[in-house]
Parts: sequence; C-alpha cells; structure tokens
Amino acid sequence: MTEPTNDESCRRAREDYEAFKARGIELNMVFGWPCPEQLENVAPMLSLPGGDDYRASGRDCRNYGGIQGLEEIREIFSPILGIPADQLVAGNNSSLALMHDVVVYATMKGVPGGEGPWVSDEKRRFLCLVPGYYCHFDITETYGFELTAVPLTGQGPDMDVVEEAVKDPAVKGIWCVPQFSNPSGETYSDETVARLAEMKTGAPSFRILWDDAYAVHNLTPELRRVANILDACVAAGHPDRPILFSSTSKITFAGAGVAFLGASPENVAWYLKHAYLRMIGPDKINQLRHVRFLKSAENVKAIMEQHRLCLAPKFEAVDEVFHRHLDDEPGVSWTEPKGGYFTLLTVKPGTARRTIELAREAGLRLSPAGTLHPDRIDPDDKLIRIAPTYPSLEDVKLAAVGIALCARLAARESAG
Amino acid sequence: MTEPTNDESCRRAREDYEAFKARGIELNMVFGWPCPEQLENVAPMLSLPGGDDYRASGRDCRNYGGIQGLEEIREIFSPILGIPADQLVAGNNSSLALMHDVVVYATMKGVPGGEGPWVSDEKRRFLCLVPGYYCHFDITETYGFELTAVPLTGQGPDMDVVEEAVKDPAVKGIWCVPQFSNPSGETYSDETVARLAEMKTGAPSFRILWDDAYAVHNLTPELRRVANILDACVAAGHPDRPILFSSTSKITFAGAGVAFLGASPENVAWYLKHAYLRMIGPDKINQLRHVRFLKSAENVKAIMEQHRLCLAPKFEAVDEVFHRHLDDEPGVSWTEPKGGYFTLLTVKPGTARRTIELAREAGLRLSPAGTLHPDRIDPDDKLIRIAPTYPSLEDVKLAAVGIALCARLAARESAG
Repeated sequence: MTEPTNDESCRRAREDYEAFKARGIELNMVFGWPCPEQLENVAPMLSLPGGDDYRASGRDCRNYGGIQGLEEIREIFSPILGIPADQLVAGNNSSLALMHDVVVYATMKGVPGGEGPWVSDEKRRFLCLVPGYYCHFDITETYGFELTAVPLTGQGPDMDVVEEAVKDPAVKGIWCVPQFSNPSGETYSDETVARLAEMKTGAPSFRILWDDAYAVHNLTPELRRVANILDACVAAGHPDRPILFSSTSKITFAGAGVAFLGASPENVAWYLKHAYLRMIGPDKINQLRHVRFLKSAENVKAIMEQHRLCLAPKFEAVDEVFHRHLDDEPGVSWTEPKGGYFTLLTVKPGTARRTIELAREAGLRLSPAGTLHPDRIDPDDKLIRIAPTYPSLEDVKLAAVGIALCARLAARESAG
Repeated sequence: MTEPTNDESCRRAREDYEAFKARGIELNMVFGWPCPEQLENVAPMLSLPGGDDYRASGRDCRNYGGIQGLEEIREIFSPILGIPADQLVAGNNSSLALMHDVVVYATMKGVPGGEGPWVSDEKRRFLCLVPGYYCHFDITETYGFELTAVPLTGQGPDMDVVEEAVKDPAVKGIWCVPQFSNPSGETYSDETVARLAEMKTGAPSFRILWDDAYAVHNLTPELRRVANILDACVAAGHPDRPILFSSTSKITFAGAGVAFLGASPENVAWYLKHAYLRMIGPDKINQLRHVRFLKSAENVKAIMEQHRLCLAPKFEAVDEVFHRHLDDEPGVSWTEPKGGYFTLLTVKPGTARRTIELAREAGLRLSPAGTLHPDRIDPDDKLIRIAPTYPSLEDVKLAAVGIALCARLAARESAG
C-alpha cells in the first residue's frame, strides 16, 4: 500500500499537469535554434554585399575559386578562435558538414602522419562524451565506428578514462564541445585541455574533433574562453592532433552562415586537397556579406551582446521556474549555463522517458530520451536536454512550468 | 634529309610563333569560367533578397532546416530539368559537391536496391567517357575505383562498348555530361539515352551520374534538349538508375549559385537521409535570392540569352581564327559547339603536348595534355580543350591565333 502522503501529492501533481495540458499549448524545445529576434539583429545582411561590391582577397568573389575562403573573413575570426588566419578555412554554411567531411576523408583516405585510412581498421572506435551531441554520434556511427561513451565531469571529459581508452590503436579520435558543451554547458578546464594535448595515443592518426560551436556565445557578461587546443597540442609535440570547427550559424543566420575549420598547416593542406575534389570553392559572396556586416572581431562581440540580451532572460526564466516548482523534488537538478544553447535537466532516476512522454501529451516537444548517449540509452533514465532559445520569453516560461509539472508527476508516479 | 618545302614552312611557322611570343601576352584558357560581363548580367543579386524578405516554403529561410531546399527554386528548375519539383533537391553552391557526396554515400553505405556498399568490392570500376571531365575522373579515382575509358562517338558514348562493359558487376556506374559534353560539345542522341536506360547491368546498384551542367547553355538561338534520362529509365523499368546533377553556376554567380540533384523518389530519400547527417539544411537565403532574381523558367532562358550574346562571339572568333590559320593543316580539326563551355581542338597526332608547351612559353595557359583521359594519357597526343568563355573577345581572338600558330609549329616540327 502507498503512503497517503504520496498518494495525495501524486493526485495534486496530476491535477496540476492536467490543468496545464488543458491549455492546449504547442511548443518545441527540441532544437537549439536562434530566435527570430536574434535574426532581426543581423537583418541588414539580407541586402549585402549590395551595389557592385564583389571584390575581396584580390579576386572576383562572384566567380569560381578560392578554396580556402576569403582572407578577410578568416582575419575576423582568427582572434576569436585563436588560430592564425592562414590556418583557418572558411567554408559554406555548416560546420557539421566540415566535421562530416573530415571523418569521410580520414576514413577513406587517412590523415597526415597516420597509419592509413581508418576504414582499414574493422574495429575502429571513436570516443564520445556523455551527455553529448547526437549529430556527432551519428556521423561516426554511420561510417562504421563503434562509439565509446566517456563521462563528463563538469571540467570536461574524465581524463583518466580517456587516457586509458586512447592507448588502443583502434580508437581514432574523440568528439569534443569544449566550451559551453552541448548539452551540459561545461567548459573544459585548462588541465583537461593540457591532458588531451599531452596524452599518448595508440593510433598515430588520432584526432580531436574540437567543435567550438559556442566560442562567443556567453550568457553572462563575462566570457571565459577555453584554453587553446592548437597551441597546447603544438607545445605537447602533437600539432596535427586537433581539428577545430566553428561557424557563424548562431552569430548571423543559422541557415546561411559561414563555417570554419582550423588546424595545423599539414591538416589544413590535407583538408583542402580533399575539399578541392569536392568543389571549386565555397560561396565567397556569402563570406563577403559576412565581412561587410561583421567588420571585426570586436564587432562580432558587440552583436553577440545583442543576442545575449535576447537569450539570457530565457535561461534565467527556466532557472527561476525550476526553482519555484522543483526545489523540493529529491534527485532533481539542472544546469545554470554560462553560455551555449541548452539547459540540462536531471530528473529523478527512472523518470526521464516518462517526463518526456507526459510533456509530449501536453503539447511540449522535448528531445527523445537517450538522445544524449551514443547508444541512445540513458542508463539512469534521468537526463533531459532543454533548448530554450527559439520560443519567446513568455513561451519559455510556460514551457518550463510544463516541464517542471511533468517531471514532478513522473517522480510521484514512480514513487507510487 | 628533310624536304626543303617543309624546312621552309617550319621556318615560317617558327617566325610567326616567335613574333607572337614576343608580344608577351598572358592569357588563361584552362577553365570554363563565366566572364565578368555574364556576372554583370546578374548583378542585382548582390542586393537580394533585401529588406525583410526572408520567408519562403512556409518557413523562415534565415534559420536552420529544409534539407531538400526551397520548393520555389525547385519549381523554377523543374521544367528546365524535366523533373518533378518533389524529385529535385536544391543544395548549396556546387553540383560537383553533390556528385562527390553521392559517390561517397554509395561507396560507404550503398544505394537503394543495390548489392551493398561499393567499398566492399575491391575491384570496383567506373566508366568514364573520353574525352571527358577530369573532376569526374578524380572523384571516382580517389575513392578507389578503377576507371574504364569509353569513347564518345559524336552521339554520346559508344553504346556497344558500354553495354558490354556494364555486364561486369564490378562496374558500378558511368559519368555522363549528356548535353554539350565537356569538352566535345556533343549532345547524346535519343537512341543513346534509350540504350543507357535499357541496358542490362551486372551490378544492381549501377548508377548513371548525369551531369546536366549545360542544360540551358546553348550557343545558338535554338536549344535542342537531350532526351529525359529519368523518364527513359522509368519506362525501361530502371527508375533508380540515373541521378541528375545541375546548377546555376553558369546562370547566376559561378561561386555562389544553387546546385540541384534530381532522381527517383527512392534515390532522393536516400540522398536526403545521408545529407541530413552532414548538415541541417542548405543556404536557403541564397536559394530565396535566386527565386527573387530568376522568377521563372522563362526568365532563366531570357538571362541565358543575354549570356549567349556574350559567349557566342567568342566561340565564333575561335572558329574563324582556326579556319584562317589551320584550314590547310592536315589532321587538324575542331568542334563547332552548339552549347557548353569548350571548343575541342584536335591537332596533328603526336603534337598536342608540344602545342601546349609552346603555348605556355608564349604566355597562353591551356589544360595540360592528357587532362581529358582518365589515366591522364592521351594515346594519340592530339586533343586540346580550349575554354574561350572567360577572356574578353579581343583576348580570345589573340589567344586563338596563338594556339593556331603553336599547333602549326608543332606539326611542322614533327614533320621535320
């Protein structure tokens, strides 16, 4: 027989949930998309470069060529990413595409200084941090890698686990989101970065795929930048180990930005050699449009401050609502991210799936359970990624209440 | 001892060549790039979509999503390419990139109805037409295909050779430029298209990669469109055999256009499934820019007529100069293309390499000898691809004279 107290609180939790459900809302909190207000912040780009403005890097940007991308856009992002402009590649609109292609080229053709194409190793593996980003998992899984989950610690990956795992020559690399990690929001400590740079790997081809997606995406006025992985790897004698990726997707237009790859001169030459087989050059007019609008690294930061003023209140609202509704829930916690695009909610173990199901029935779409794990199974069934950036502030508040009510009801049900 | 007559004509040919060389010109006739005048024809695109124009296909084009590309741009190209809009994908700026990715996905993962990933077949082969396009050769060679050269006949590939070759299950596909072929300029006959559609292939996965690069790029007022390969393959019971590629690279901006893939619903779903792992969507703002500027299929043709008026005189000038200088040269001939971007010059066998070398010494850059053959060797050493589109009309005339003088001198030298 259940405790009357729980019975009663379960009944109340259900009543609150049903009342919320009855409002018939429809909200999507699945994806980390910029909101319309952010896109308005960069609206002048729709008319750029304009007039007869088409020359940059000594060339006619309208025509073919220039596989490395415009110098001018690389110069703007060089200080932001901490990489010399000539070690940056500026591409089309998707950094995920650059990551995908690096995995394809390495798998099919091998990397500089490596032991040959990764495809030759039938037992090839890749390290994925948990909780992590499913698009990373998908790419390596698709191309035949077995994924090994490594826990995050709040300071980045558990380096004891990583150092042990990378001794195996079948382990070809690791996916990292080093700053405002998706979805935990953590930024790797200096020690983590140093150990990643210094560790001994069994595979000479080992690559750190450093997805620097949130390089200037702070939610607080101050930005603490993650340590420079390229510099650390040079210092450790492993200059070809890291390949950095970034983009303007959450700076300008999410679908029409410019993506970057940064790495050692050898890796850059290797990437460009393969990329040139794929296309004669990136969209340089779009890069010029970005040069004209963004102007300088300082101005990028000014634009990001405008975005921050849109976004920070949404994250604060989630935090405030969760405190109000979930402070007294045992086992429930959530991150207070200093940057990035996600809040990570930890619900009572065994209730994440049910929370997400209840939310869906109430019109709130959340990422499916298990999304944050490479095998798509959350062993504790407790992690939920929340993306509060896209909806309006009012909708975020409403959604946060809904999520809290679902989490509470799921907890009560499971206690029953 | 040489004939005095040849001695004398060789001396004259050398004098003419040296006089040309002394002019110290510097011209590049290697690449089929649009000329600045063509780019001016579409100059208003630099300010589009403009204002607050960012909605299409029921979505905010500035944000992520829409992996198949905007309906509106697919509707414009549907009648041009002869493919229903829902069987078209609109991508980023490079059709070569789409071809590359199709080869990668098929090689690593296999195609619908196929026998598995092409990479599983260590002896995998691909058919390439000769003379052909080196970017096609490079992609398949890079991913481990042995290339088999098939001669072109003036009506497309020698179908007797193709039909025999494709019986081998190791032969996974064929590269085709079916209209105004690069570089021969020929358009495949209806019979060729029908035989390509109907032939029996050993590999169930066999794919025709149909690079429809010059779909509306006629040099004469009338455009004869190549037969519809998708329709022909459906009629022959092989709906998944062809994958068509095209782009606006030589319609709008060469570096900032929109590329298309067209195929059966199964192939389109297969492509999109893989493409979605690579990126969240193409640059829809650039697609919207194209929608606003191009407006309709009819208007695309009107723009192409403007381009034609730039380009046709250059091809006519090459023809006129060659007639003037080479009519009396035995074994020398050249194409009179009705469309596309190249004139193919056939010099005296054994003298193409020398002609190209003489040209380079006189400041004229031509494609290296062997470029048009998958093994990079022209067995007769006689084919030279000439790209007269980019330089000004005056420069094209000058270059054509130079090429003619080089071809003549090389012929005289070899007769010596």
